[in-house]
Amino acid sequence: MDALFEIKLDIAGRGTRASGRTLYEELKAAIIDGRLRPGTQLPATRASAAFFAVSRNTAVQAYHRLLTEGLLMSRQGSGTFVADAPPMPRGRSVAAVPAASHPALNPFWLRKDVTAAMGFWRDTPDTVAGDGPSLDFRPALIDPRLFPFDIFRRVMTGQLRGLEKRPARYKSPQGNQGNYHLREAITRHIALTRAVVCTADDILVTSGAQQAFDLLARVLVTPGQTVVAVEDPGYPPMRVAFAAAGATLVPVPVDDEGLMVDRLPVNAGVICLCPSHQFPLGVSMSPRRRQALLDIARQRGAVIVEDDYDGEFRHEGSPLEVLRTPAHADTVFYVGTFSKCMLPSLRLGYLVAPAWAMPTLVAAKNCMDWHCPTPIQLGVARFIDEGHLAAHVRRMRQRYRERREALLEVMDTLAPTLTPLPSSYGMHLSATVPSDIDAEEVAGFLQRRRIKLHTLHRYYHGVVDRHGFVFGFGALEPEQIRGAGEALAAALASARSLKD
Amino acid sequence: MDALFEIKLDIAGRGTRASGRTLYEELKAAIIDGRLRPGTQLPATRASAAFFAVSRNTAVQAYHRLLTEGLLMSRQGSGTFVADAPPMPRGRSVAAVPAASHPALNPFWLRKDVTAAMGFWRDTPDTVAGDGPSLDFRPALIDPRLFPFDIFRRVMTGQLRGLEKRPARYKSPQGNQGNYHLREAITRHIALTRAVVCTADDILVTSGAQQAFDLLARVLVTPGQTVVAVEDPGYPPMRVAFAAAGATLVPVPVDDEGLMVDRLPVNAGVICLCPSHQFPLGVSMSPRRRQALLDIARQRGAVIVEDDYDGEFRHEGSPLEVLRTPAHADTVFYVGTFSKCMLPSLRLGYLVAPAWAMPTLVAAKNCMDWHCPTPIQLGVARFIDEGHLAAHVRRMRQRYRERREALLEVMDTLAPTLTPLPSSYGMHLSATVPSDIDAEEVAGFLQRRRIKLHTLHRYYHGVVDRHGFVFGFGALEPEQIRGAGEALAAALASARSLKD
Repeated sequence: MDALFEIKLDIAGRGTRASGRTLYEELKAAIIDGRLRPGTQLPATRASAAFFAVSRNTAVQAYHRLLTEGLLMSRQGSGTFVADAPPMPRGRSVAAVPAASHPALNPFWLRKDVTAAMGFWRDTPDTVAGDGPSLDFRPALIDPRLFPFDIFRRVMTGQLRGLEKRPARYKSPQGNQGNYHLREAITRHIALTRAVVCTADDILVTSGAQQAFDLLARVLVTPGQTVVAVEDPGYPPMRVAFAAAGATLVPVPVDDEGLMVDRLPVNAGVICLCPSHQFPLGVSMSPRRRQALLDIARQRGAVIVEDDYDGEFRHEGSPLEVLRTPAHADTVFYVGTFSKCMLPSLRLGYLVAPAWAMPTLVAAKNCMDWHCPTPIQLGVARFIDEGHLAAHVRRMRQRYRERREALLEVMDTLAPTLTPLPSSYGMHLSATVPSDIDAEEVAGFLQRRRIKLHTLHRYYHGVVDRHGFVFGFGALEPEQIRGAGEALAAALASARSLKD
Repeated sequence: MDALFEIKLDIAGRGTRASGRTLYEELKAAIIDGRLRPGTQLPATRASAAFFAVSRNTAVQAYHRLLTEGLLMSRQGSGTFVADAPPMPRGRSVAAVPAASHPALNPFWLRKDVTAAMGFWRDTPDTVAGDGPSLDFRPALIDPRLFPFDIFRRVMTGQLRGLEKRPARYKSPQGNQGNYHLREAITRHIALTRAVVCTADDILVTSGAQQAFDLLARVLVTPGQTVVAVEDPGYPPMRVAFAAAGATLVPVPVDDEGLMVDRLPVNAGVICLCPSHQFPLGVSMSPRRRQALLDIARQRGAVIVEDDYDGEFRHEGSPLEVLRTPAHADTVFYVGTFSKCMLPSLRLGYLVAPAWAMPTLVAAKNCMDWHCPTPIQLGVARFIDEGHLAAHVRRMRQRYRERREALLEVMDTLAPTLTPLPSSYGMHLSATVPSDIDAEEVAGFLQRRRIKLHTLHRYYHGVVDRHGFVFGFGALEPEQIRGAGEALAAALASARSLKD
């Protein structure tokens, strides 16, 4: 109990009340900065409460939260220990945390939930030395090995040559809504893959879906007033965009039928969701929920942000209609991206927006960066025009289906404790574990074997109501997926045996 | 007075007090919607005050403001008239104005100053039919005819081929601060052209200078608290970015020595300026003012945003140091762009930022769009590496110098009523006119002859203390500039004769 004693002295030295830090925060800080080393056993909650002069309830809650975050681990019958190689808090890497606040900085960006969310895709440092191959099951990764770079290069080169020939018509900064040619091409792409009916005038080109969220947040949120409903679990960087604009976020739970519409707060002015392939759960919204959502939005004058990040890749079932049909074109903002169906490094996405919002969206987009780079817009437009995107999507749909099948097979044969959630689209699927398995522990076990896997918990904003994993299979070959099966089974078995 | 009578009836019908519209707004609306036709004579202010039941002072102020905005014109000795072809208010085009507000929209983006500023670079519709060549003297335009597209295309193609060869190392979304290779290349470019001393770690790549402003605004402004000092006149889209983030803007006047440092509000937390080549006046900040500014910022704990949009193009005098020297690296955010020295359509710029702000800037940039498109970053990096940017800047510096000389010669010989402001950098210079010449009238006259020219007044935020024009010569050949001389002289003579 030496380490704990030091912490107690530390708290006493600063004066707990004055510092305002809770027992949870004190313990967490001590684990992260190494004062409490991995493997250190903590006293039972009753003893701890007495030792730190807090209520038993406070101690229980602090332990529970640290267990959930993977900083502590509990071995049934033997007590609670500081976890081996504690995970970075909520997917955050050290570099993402500002060394110190500075009086000139807007404190919003220093909030822990914000720095954690914006470090979401950053690689966590490997906790084990050595440089064997690593397998990356994080979602939203695509496989650039399968992208037709040769074609894209030829198309881009042709477009740059085209610019040369008509210098006088070269676009000046006022090409605000994005190149007309690209917007036209996008209407054809989404008509083909998603049956979205719209014209080029309904489209605004953005720097990926993230800019579309940020743009929508700035235009649809009146700071301090607007309530925004978000799916929980959901995509943290999207939440941050709305929070940064001054929205009050209300997390709404998701079940196997998608967003639980009856749990929507009545005062939500904006409702954000992924109806086709929920992120991260992967479920599709049922037709009756869709109808209920559209009815509610219309009754209450709320608008809907429909994130359709990988709707091009349907694997089974009949295609589900998007929410943004012509009948609901005034209510729904549809967000699409070329990050999944082409390359994330192009930073290109788009919005299909109601006419009433377009002038305001253009003004805000201008304020943000005027427009997206013309060479990229021209290149992607031609890539679509010449049919390469349609061909690539067809090819990748087949590849992703094979990978998905390999993953389901692994779960079925080697990891039956995993229950896959229903999912018929995209490049990832999620699976839950029974409550006696600590998902963080499994992820930590796998990380030490150079397998990267996100737990579901890091996608939550409010109450964590499911435990499990998100398996992104976009960047892994079927053999690689099958190859990871043994390690996965071992990790699950190990986590369970600790509890037995 | 029929038209005026209708307006009076209209006001009475709505109840002036209830509608809250001032006489100025009533008259303006009537001029814009055509109820008051061009050429209509207005009664003298005393008569108008009696007629509309307002004080004489109110009427004088309303007339003065409408005269300043070019909606009225005053013919000395004969009274005040509705201007011919009233200019679009503050550079705004009709399309930029939302048709109607919508309850779901953040009202900030509907503010007139905001829509006007964000429509800043948009073409105003030509008021005269016919399709002769038009001459565009608007600032910040570059001449794409002189850009080495062939080289850029070859470089881009090579970089895309490079990507193909190493797919496994293809950048995932976490390349947040921009490609290292580009950041390295930028340090060399600004060391060479501007003697800026920094490392790649100090650089953040942005989508042009506009995103740098927006990013800085979001990170440096705490909504409702931070006071931001901006140059007046200055660049309206930059002001909007800070206002959108919730800053209180304080305009600070600029004289021939640059920003009037002694007029800075004591509570300004952020001070934005263009010390090398003020936009739009073109003046350079004097060494003593620079020192005073840096001293004040340090004393008060304020930070400085140094916009150096065309610092590569120095035409005379010895080079002026940037504010962002190593001694002030903790206080100054330096903003640069490739829009002037390469192409605006690349949408690429950068920040040199203090280390204390970098993690927060990265988080905010991630929230906005993760990072800039990798192909563009790679292409520009290689373009710099192979020496093409340095060569292009050298060539363009010579070209811009010739154009500037042609413009000064035109002013000297044909338009002596214009007084050029001192300026030693860049692709534009400004000139003032005596107070008896109505600059808006001159610009209107020229526009009817298909010559586009910005008046200084549209760059003002507060009190207009100079009248004149901004002559951008970036996109015009010396012969084109000389060819516009006659029309310019005629416009100035015509505006003056109206007053005689």
